[in-house]
Amino acid sequence: MNIPSKRIANAVESLSSLPGIGKKTALRLALHILKRPEEEVMEFCDNVYKMKSESHFCKKCHNISDDILCSICTNPNRNTQQICVVQDIRDVLALESTMEYYGVYHVLGGVISPIDGIGPGDIHLFSLIERIEKESITEIIFALNPSIEGDTTTYYISKHLKEKDIKISSLARGIAFGGELEYTDEFTLAKSLINRQPYGSLTLK
Amino acid sequence: MNIPSKRIANAVESLSSLPGIGKKTALRLALHILKRPEEEVMEFCDNVYKMKSESHFCKKCHNISDDILCSICTNPNRNTQQICVVQDIRDVLALESTMEYYGVYHVLGGVISPIDGIGPGDIHLFSLIERIEKESITEIIFALNPSIEGDTTTYYISKHLKEKDIKISSLARGIAFGGELEYTDEFTLAKSLINRQPYGSLTLK
Repeated sequence: MNIPSKRIANAVESLSSLPGIGKKTALRLALHILKRPEEEVMEFCDNVYKMKSESHFCKKCHNISDDILCSICTNPNRNTQQICVVQDIRDVLALESTMEYYGVYHVLGGVISPIDGIGPGDIHLFSLIERIEKESITEIIFALNPSIEGDTTTYYISKHLKEKDIKISSLARGIAFGGELEYTDEFTLAKSLINRQPYGSLTLK
Repeated sequence: MNIPSKRIANAVESLSSLPGIGKKTALRLALHILKRPEEEVMEFCDNVYKMKSESHFCKKCHNISDDILCSICTNPNRNTQQICVVQDIRDVLALESTMEYYGVYHVLGGVISPIDGIGPGDIHLFSLIERIEKESITEIIFALNPSIEGDTTTYYISKHLKEKDIKISSLARGIAFGGELEYTDEFTLAKSLINRQPYGSLTLK
């Protein structure tokens, strides 16, 4: 694609550096931006740049934050003795949207994956262990994605919890609401059969 | 989705204003931008803003341009007597990538569509008629999308060309290279049969 304007070519290059956006989509976005009023484009650029230059990660749980500590860690109504361990910031948002969790979080920023060269030192794991040592924690909830890497990470952390009087749990696995038995994989179906629950305990409030 | 950081929420809002990008994708993009070095983000914003503030549309053909006239209109090797009429800047790029066209363009910026309230005055149509009147044009090639709106626009322009000694043509319609007869619609197939071409004339050089 030979774009006749250097400035547009530069913008297309920048836009196509975003994940999942190819050259053609980037050009479509660039032409859309070109048609918008200048103030709007200025605001767009300002918002993106300000996010980068002024956002922080929470010093305690590594969640996104406008200040040193995030709004969840500083919320007095949250149970700070309960830590939910997640892989990514998006998982915090997903769990928050359930409005069923009142504890705090710890964002690992990844999972242990030897095949990708990611060890315990490459994610926020030691800071979690430090929290467990220093704070008075009563429960750790593992909310990592169901994968080999997720399970390895859970196992690694759980080893450090063995001699402590801390309740350890992980998200229930089973068939999803609205899911169909026919299309559920055997492993999930088997697990949901083994861990079957008393009738009536699973309906949403 | 309740994003705990105001700055990130603003950036997500801005990113999701782009066409085809929803809130979830915008958050994914925002978190990706957050992980990139500050200089890169600065360059990204700079490129987008510069494109908006410093790009022009060619005064003659309405193509994108860094100057008053675009690089195609000012190219002395182009045949300025041949005008290819297209709907969008992306169509110029598509035709340029064939490397088979040596004339100039006229970007309408839309097509006549009474149902959407778009009349001849809302697109760059009068400036095309002006070019036809003033410049010495020998051929007009209609390269609009095959749709009712495209055909209406072609018809409207062709009315203004009736008494002039100008060759009028439009892109050939037929089955595409790599296409399969089985999946070609009846109308296209019928057209490609009626307008069949001498054997050997259709192979790519």
